[in-house]
Amino acid sequence: MNADIRRERENASFKTEVLTHILDGGPEKTKRRREIENLVINDPGFQHEDLNFLSRSERYDAAVKKSAWMILKLREYGISDPEEIFFYKSFVHRGRPEPLDLHLGMFLPTLLNQATPEQQDAFFMPAWNLKIIGTYAQTEMGHGTHIRGLETTATYDPSTQEFVLNSPTVTSIKWWPGGLGKTSNHAVVLAQLYTQGNCHGLHAFIVPIRCMTTHKPLPGVVVGDIGPKFGFDEVDNGFLKLENVRIPRENMLMKYAKVEPDGTYKKPPSDKLTYSTMVFIRSMIVGESARSLSKACMIAIRYSAVRHQSELRAGEPEPQILDYQTQQYKLFPLLAAAYAFHFMGQYMIQMYHRISGDISQGDFSEMSELHALSAGLKAFTTWVATEGIEVCRMACGGHGYSRCSRLPDIYVTFAPTCTYEGENTVMMLQTARYLVKSYSQASAGQKLSGMVSYLNESQQHHLQAQPVTARSTVVNINDLTSLVEAYKLRAAKLVELAAKNLQHELQLKASKEDAWNNTSIELVRASDAHCHYVVVKTFAAKLTEVHDAAVHLALSTLALLYALHGMTENSGDFLQAGLLTVPQLSQVSQRVKELLSQVRPNAVALVDAFDYRDEILDSALGRYDGNVYESMFEWAQKSPLNQTEVHESYHKYLKPLQSKL
Amino acid sequence: MNADIRRERENASFKTEVLTHILDGGPEKTKRRREIENLVINDPGFQHEDLNFLSRSERYDAAVKKSAWMILKLREYGISDPEEIFFYKSFVHRGRPEPLDLHLGMFLPTLLNQATPEQQDAFFMPAWNLKIIGTYAQTEMGHGTHIRGLETTATYDPSTQEFVLNSPTVTSIKWWPGGLGKTSNHAVVLAQLYTQGNCHGLHAFIVPIRCMTTHKPLPGVVVGDIGPKFGFDEVDNGFLKLENVRIPRENMLMKYAKVEPDGTYKKPPSDKLTYSTMVFIRSMIVGESARSLSKACMIAIRYSAVRHQSELRAGEPEPQILDYQTQQYKLFPLLAAAYAFHFMGQYMIQMYHRISGDISQGDFSEMSELHALSAGLKAFTTWVATEGIEVCRMACGGHGYSRCSRLPDIYVTFAPTCTYEGENTVMMLQTARYLVKSYSQASAGQKLSGMVSYLNESQQHHLQAQPVTARSTVVNINDLTSLVEAYKLRAAKLVELAAKNLQHELQLKASKEDAWNNTSIELVRASDAHCHYVVVKTFAAKLTEVHDAAVHLALSTLALLYALHGMTENSGDFLQAGLLTVPQLSQVSQRVKELLSQVRPNAVALVDAFDYRDEILDSALGRYDGNVYESMFEWAQKSPLNQTEVHESYHKYLKPLQSKL
Repeated sequence: MNADIRRERENASFKTEVLTHILDGGPEKTKRRREIENLVINDPGFQHEDLNFLSRSERYDAAVKKSAWMILKLREYGISDPEEIFFYKSFVHRGRPEPLDLHLGMFLPTLLNQATPEQQDAFFMPAWNLKIIGTYAQTEMGHGTHIRGLETTATYDPSTQEFVLNSPTVTSIKWWPGGLGKTSNHAVVLAQLYTQGNCHGLHAFIVPIRCMTTHKPLPGVVVGDIGPKFGFDEVDNGFLKLENVRIPRENMLMKYAKVEPDGTYKKPPSDKLTYSTMVFIRSMIVGESARSLSKACMIAIRYSAVRHQSELRAGEPEPQILDYQTQQYKLFPLLAAAYAFHFMGQYMIQMYHRISGDISQGDFSEMSELHALSAGLKAFTTWVATEGIEVCRMACGGHGYSRCSRLPDIYVTFAPTCTYEGENTVMMLQTARYLVKSYSQASAGQKLSGMVSYLNESQQHHLQAQPVTARSTVVNINDLTSLVEAYKLRAAKLVELAAKNLQHELQLKASKEDAWNNTSIELVRASDAHCHYVVVKTFAAKLTEVHDAAVHLALSTLALLYALHGMTENSGDFLQAGLLTVPQLSQVSQRVKELLSQVRPNAVALVDAFDYRDEILDSALGRYDGNVYESMFEWAQKSPLNQTEVHESYHKYLKPLQSKL
Repeated sequence: MNADIRRERENASFKTEVLTHILDGGPEKTKRRREIENLVINDPGFQHEDLNFLSRSERYDAAVKKSAWMILKLREYGISDPEEIFFYKSFVHRGRPEPLDLHLGMFLPTLLNQATPEQQDAFFMPAWNLKIIGTYAQTEMGHGTHIRGLETTATYDPSTQEFVLNSPTVTSIKWWPGGLGKTSNHAVVLAQLYTQGNCHGLHAFIVPIRCMTTHKPLPGVVVGDIGPKFGFDEVDNGFLKLENVRIPRENMLMKYAKVEPDGTYKKPPSDKLTYSTMVFIRSMIVGESARSLSKACMIAIRYSAVRHQSELRAGEPEPQILDYQTQQYKLFPLLAAAYAFHFMGQYMIQMYHRISGDISQGDFSEMSELHALSAGLKAFTTWVATEGIEVCRMACGGHGYSRCSRLPDIYVTFAPTCTYEGENTVMMLQTARYLVKSYSQASAGQKLSGMVSYLNESQQHHLQAQPVTARSTVVNINDLTSLVEAYKLRAAKLVELAAKNLQHELQLKASKEDAWNNTSIELVRASDAHCHYVVVKTFAAKLTEVHDAAVHLALSTLALLYALHGMTENSGDFLQAGLLTVPQLSQVSQRVKELLSQVRPNAVALVDAFDYRDEILDSALGRYDGNVYESMFEWAQKSPLNQTEVHESYHKYLKPLQSKL
């Protein structure tokens, strides 16, 4: 092992294993996760050449191979707990998406949730046994987050008791669904239902798209891969154009809405019933933000402990780059964010399960809060993590640009979370709608509960813009509780600002929609502040559950850093709201620097605690043993361009050129 | 043409062509640029398959083919002006780097600048005619920006009058040079010179690395490609390990430093002589920031004019997404930054040529300012542009993630500017060193000139932290001159803050280096503010040269937006320095929104003016005619995964799996 990184581990003030247990949710969870990890890593069925050296078609091929093997092994081991399946899958594919993702994650669950018992009999077992391989075809070329705009039509023909599916325009071609291009032989297609001359809006239909024997596209089906992307090389995101494709009436998913044989339409009892998958996925993405950012931090921080560069003191050896304050300033707040998002992700999943339980008992009271929180936090955490991964990459200097660092791959795999499952700005505005509504309710004297309860208080105090000097400052920058309070007041202030701006616009103009649009910058800002408050509060609350004194101290330092660094990043807000004074802001900057040096000796241990094994992290820079340069050199030799001593282009172009000049 | 985008062009308030001439530097320049563009676009020798569909080896092959053809054509047309060669090259490769970049941009110039007349005779013509293909091998695996740390050795052996070159450690292996892996048969190698038992620091040596007949690596030379990267697929960035490689004494570049036959070392007259290429490249990168960001803006803004999504008013058709305030807020400040950086880039090149002239006359007085400015602005503009390109990509929703948008490619091609030619944080600290030194000089009563002359004033006024309410505010937020003044005072304030922090640390601690490191966050912040000021000032100055009233108005709106948006982004600084009051800050936010709606009708014309032809922009989303969806669909059909109806992985893995379940 590299001597620098060994010394870092020896100098840590806490036991890494204790923190790993906290991150996993208990020692038994850690144990089980590692068992699953070992099953995958020791399985020769999952070995393959380095994906970086393969063409896209070969990468897709390797992924299908592994996914097929994975299905067999999961059945063999009897692994059926969703969390365990999730671990198994992400170990197999090293956190990358794979061609069967939508079959497992959307097609099967949709059947379970929206098919009638007869439909379950007809479709579920064939799908479970991969006779039917399905995907979920919602997004169209011209229509994304706003799904009401989808154009695909399903017109009922009572004479044959069939639906006729069509893509009437170029913009209506289904575009993006994973596994649609080459893998799936069925798709759940979202389409506008027409029957008896009326449109009844979007409904879901099971559409066979490829022959179950030959796998060739069926008549009327134009299907294929949408071409290479920034990442997702293993996935055949596809297009689907339907030309008078007929399916039996029984292929409309009819657990809720129905079309009778004669074409009579029966409405679903509620339109909130398909809501819950979306909320679940967004909540999961919060945890994914933590995972991706923590991987990037692990790579950058371990590398920064190994890398020596420049000089701090003339004549002395080059220092570890982790000793540079600017390097710490880049990486440690991101490390703190990774922890904050991890605990936030755990909270969201717990909240989801609790509220799902309530909903199944008929209690919808917390549904809106969950919806608003999952939308906003999905946007808040993915934006921070996406930018943060790139900061980590660039903090590795040039070597971060090499595929052997794994950082480009982590980035392109994670980045689409900002635009899929609801585009982030749209998500922030959905959260804002809830905040503004809550603000109005509080103004009207209604007592709010949950994460927005602070809006009650703001009504009591009638928060107003005050000159900084006029208010008595209460923020204690060394006390996390006081900082949570400051974040809360900032959120209250910005929600109020947005709500008042909206009212002001409404007074000036006729249209509610224009007023909303003209306030949208403030609305996004309010949602952002609300989410920031929730994350700081959740991090602080988590600390009360940590009993190991050394770990508690290390995490408290990170929590303080997270909160205070966020204040310097948003100092205008805190000054503007009169929550900080100018001299206090200087103290905050100073305190951030002290915290950086407190995190420094524990930095490697804090990333070790994430416990990603080398086989999973797959980074020459982030190796546990710190043998970075040997590993890079070994990797480079395997580059396809090194398979021959002289590249053929020399003989084809350069040699002939020499004779012409 | 798409009706929306036609309407946008009809509604513009100015003539696009007039603005294009301003960007090019005059109508003749536009004409000549377009002539060159036509030469490239109409040349069948430059046609090739879409690079997105090729393997890396095929992409390298295609690039070598085009580069070889390019050399022939440049000779044929007699194009020799560096700016024209630059245009020709970037049209041929669509802005992507290529395998001969270092031969043309570093190897030949190094011979011209550092070789003796005898060496020129021996090496220049063979290199000009590509018998010798060279690269510039500086960076090592363990050593980047801090070049004094390089480990490669060149030891003089007087018995044979040769240098013996060695890579003594893994970290000393040359790593990253473009064209080194497969293309070059020679390299200029930077190595520590040892003669007569003493080390004389870094010197440059011409080292043959491949046989000029067979192109095979020479004995003792281990050379190859460093493997796939985030981008730069066309370039064979390489590694080079030297094992007792002997070269004649005459292969040391000896225009300045010399080693006599007996091994006697003669020092160069000055160590600043190799300085100028570095400064030139950094100045060029400022312009490259503008080019890359403006391409991204062109794609995102045109697409936002064509894309319809969601609803502003119930029942009405989906609006163009460019009508959403949040979309304008993402894109228009970046558009303004692209213009600002374009003018900044023009200024830097002019400044470079002016000061180079002075230097050749023996006047070094402005050299430090140029060096500091080029370092800081390189960092400032590349950071903003890198982030901005991704904002543009995500503003295109999911489709920005497709390679057909070109945005992923623009990002990965541009992103390394943040870490190469001097890592950005190191660059900011170099600028800070100049600023702090200037501050000390001003404090000591010395009169400063140039961009730092404001530090004279700050000494007169003794700027100090003042409570906001106590100062009489002078900033007029509608007046660009007043805003330039505010940026100037912010910079002065932050330079002062950094300088005082440094003094404070020095009082506390013994070591100068620790004090510097402990102030580095403030130092970077000061450099950032200085650069921001210079960019705002340069944009404002440029307006005085614009005589067309309509164009002047459009550009003034952008300049105001650039300045005011920067204030909202850094509101904490302006509040902290007492340059803005809280109510003024609200006015700034309000004014930014007004400016967004003023830019809106000209947005498409403002990107059209950049005048990138479809063939060069190569983006389905950014097409001039706005036929986005048809173009995407056509492109996707050509994806390699669509070459067969059924991918072989189906027969290999999925079909067999079905029978096992």
